[in-house]
Amino acid sequence: MPVGTQGTVKTVGSEDLERLGFQLVLSNTYHLSLRPSADIVEKLGGLHKFMSWKGAILTDSGGYQVMSLAHMRKITEEGVSFKSHLDGSEHFMTPERSIQIQGQLGVDISMALDVCPPYPCTRDEAAEAMRLTHLWAPRNLAARPESQAVFGIVQGGVHEDLRRESADFVTGQPFDGFAVGGVSVGEPTEMQRPVVKLTTPLLPVDKPRYLMGVGHPRDILHAVACGIDMFDCVLPTRMARHHALYTLKGRVNAMGKQWAEHDGPFDEGSQFPQTERYSAAYVRHLFKAGESLALRLATLHNLAFYARLMSEIREAITDGNWPDLLKRYKDA
Amino acid sequence: MPVGTQGTVKTVGSEDLERLGFQLVLSNTYHLSLRPSADIVEKLGGLHKFMSWKGAILTDSGGYQVMSLAHMRKITEEGVSFKSHLDGSEHFMTPERSIQIQGQLGVDISMALDVCPPYPCTRDEAAEAMRLTHLWAPRNLAARPESQAVFGIVQGGVHEDLRRESADFVTGQPFDGFAVGGVSVGEPTEMQRPVVKLTTPLLPVDKPRYLMGVGHPRDILHAVACGIDMFDCVLPTRMARHHALYTLKGRVNAMGKQWAEHDGPFDEGSQFPQTERYSAAYVRHLFKAGESLALRLATLHNLAFYARLMSEIREAITDGNWPDLLKRYKDA
Repeated sequence: MPVGTQGTVKTVGSEDLERLGFQLVLSNTYHLSLRPSADIVEKLGGLHKFMSWKGAILTDSGGYQVMSLAHMRKITEEGVSFKSHLDGSEHFMTPERSIQIQGQLGVDISMALDVCPPYPCTRDEAAEAMRLTHLWAPRNLAARPESQAVFGIVQGGVHEDLRRESADFVTGQPFDGFAVGGVSVGEPTEMQRPVVKLTTPLLPVDKPRYLMGVGHPRDILHAVACGIDMFDCVLPTRMARHHALYTLKGRVNAMGKQWAEHDGPFDEGSQFPQTERYSAAYVRHLFKAGESLALRLATLHNLAFYARLMSEIREAITDGNWPDLLKRYKDA
Repeated sequence: MPVGTQGTVKTVGSEDLERLGFQLVLSNTYHLSLRPSADIVEKLGGLHKFMSWKGAILTDSGGYQVMSLAHMRKITEEGVSFKSHLDGSEHFMTPERSIQIQGQLGVDISMALDVCPPYPCTRDEAAEAMRLTHLWAPRNLAARPESQAVFGIVQGGVHEDLRRESADFVTGQPFDGFAVGGVSVGEPTEMQRPVVKLTTPLLPVDKPRYLMGVGHPRDILHAVACGIDMFDCVLPTRMARHHALYTLKGRVNAMGKQWAEHDGPFDEGSQFPQTERYSAAYVRHLFKAGESLALRLATLHNLAFYARLMSEIREAITDGNWPDLLKRYKDA
């Protein structure tokens, strides 16, 4: 899932995402509920119509943004009170309210409101976050209209016993899919993979398994090998805006001097129809000149890289040539 | 001509300009010669290949930017010395050098280096600028390789006798087309139209007549009625970046509250295939949220408006229904 926090995958249009072959985008309950507001999006026919996106949409619950962006937040068993980072207005988010907002947005997959503590956190903090996540799980489900899919989220930090307890509890609830939450929240990669390896096999194989916020191409390959089906990550789009382009040989700096007279693409192995008419020298020039077309072309490049990665992953699973794929992406 | 100063029409790609139906874009000798440099563009196969534009390209001579952007400029009969606004490096621009650079860029139409005094200027300043422009005119032509078209520029400020003298001299030179220069340099509209009305009929009808830097839709209609064939103007792209959108009812502010829940386009009469999938409410939301897709969609809207204006002008001339066209655009 490309990330379209404010109802737009930064710098590109829905027609671009269609051409790139994406099936699902992620958008954000917290941001959209504050601006333009769930009422307005609903009145305008829902988020699909608002952003003119014919594919599917998943929204996160807003819980993570309340923790990372909002001011004056206070968590109780009832929900989270906070002040908007935009205008200081006061809000109270509950599982019921989150599911209701996601219903107003009219998305295909809504995420249960959980508590996701940022890294680093103590074992006690991880346990308390898990306790509230479990307390809220049935309330998310009870608030769901019949037509709305809701995914549950497993918490538990980096602690094996908590992860097992959380997976056990959450998968016991009638969610439509399950997510591994609480990873990619600032922890080092070497702490992330064991959590994914431990938690993923605890989730049922007959429902979508979603790893939130991951990630690097090789982390995605690792997680798929563990059984993960779905990902969202800001990396391809965010890195593009910082002139970091994904190639099979790793990320390259599009402003590097080596591209100044380079008439070909950044990666001979990754020529994409969306960007192939522009040389690396031209994209570098646009970045140097501060031209916003640079951000668009770099974003299209990285999204195309990820779209191809996911497409090749699906092929490798079907064709049984996983080792070849790992070899192809070993430096990515 | 959409304006692509740095080898890019801001926020959009060449594929967008193709779809919009433009045949010619303007780019800039001063900017490109400083960054990435004429040598690099030449080495990369010329400006068409560099910006991946299959249509035609006209470059201005760089004279105007030297006057308005560069530092420490000094004009002599030989040429203009100046320091780059980017890095302070010292340069010397002459008619020969300007034509040579435009040749390296490989453009279809190059403009003669002239002296264009910014408004306001005294009669003496206007006369001196004209004198140098005339002195340089044959030098521009002498420097031209056979394959390179060069347009001459008529100066003379707002003074009828100087304009007549300049048109007389410049049209006596074997240029491939003629431009009315020295307008749209800061003067009020009511001072611009008389100059266009006076000067245009003094130019030969069997060569292209180009009004530099104009302009507003109604100024374009006025100039076409005077006999002008070609225009360049930053207005559609620059205004878009300031959320000002052209409609048949005049320019509207895309951030205005009236669009907050407006599910249709900004102008019922100007639905364009490039932008029609997005509502005014969505574009307003993107501007409010600081999303760069807003700049792209607004630019596509305004370019589509101008592309249609020029297309309808051509039709009206052929079909003889000019009065209807004036009526249609009376509020634009």
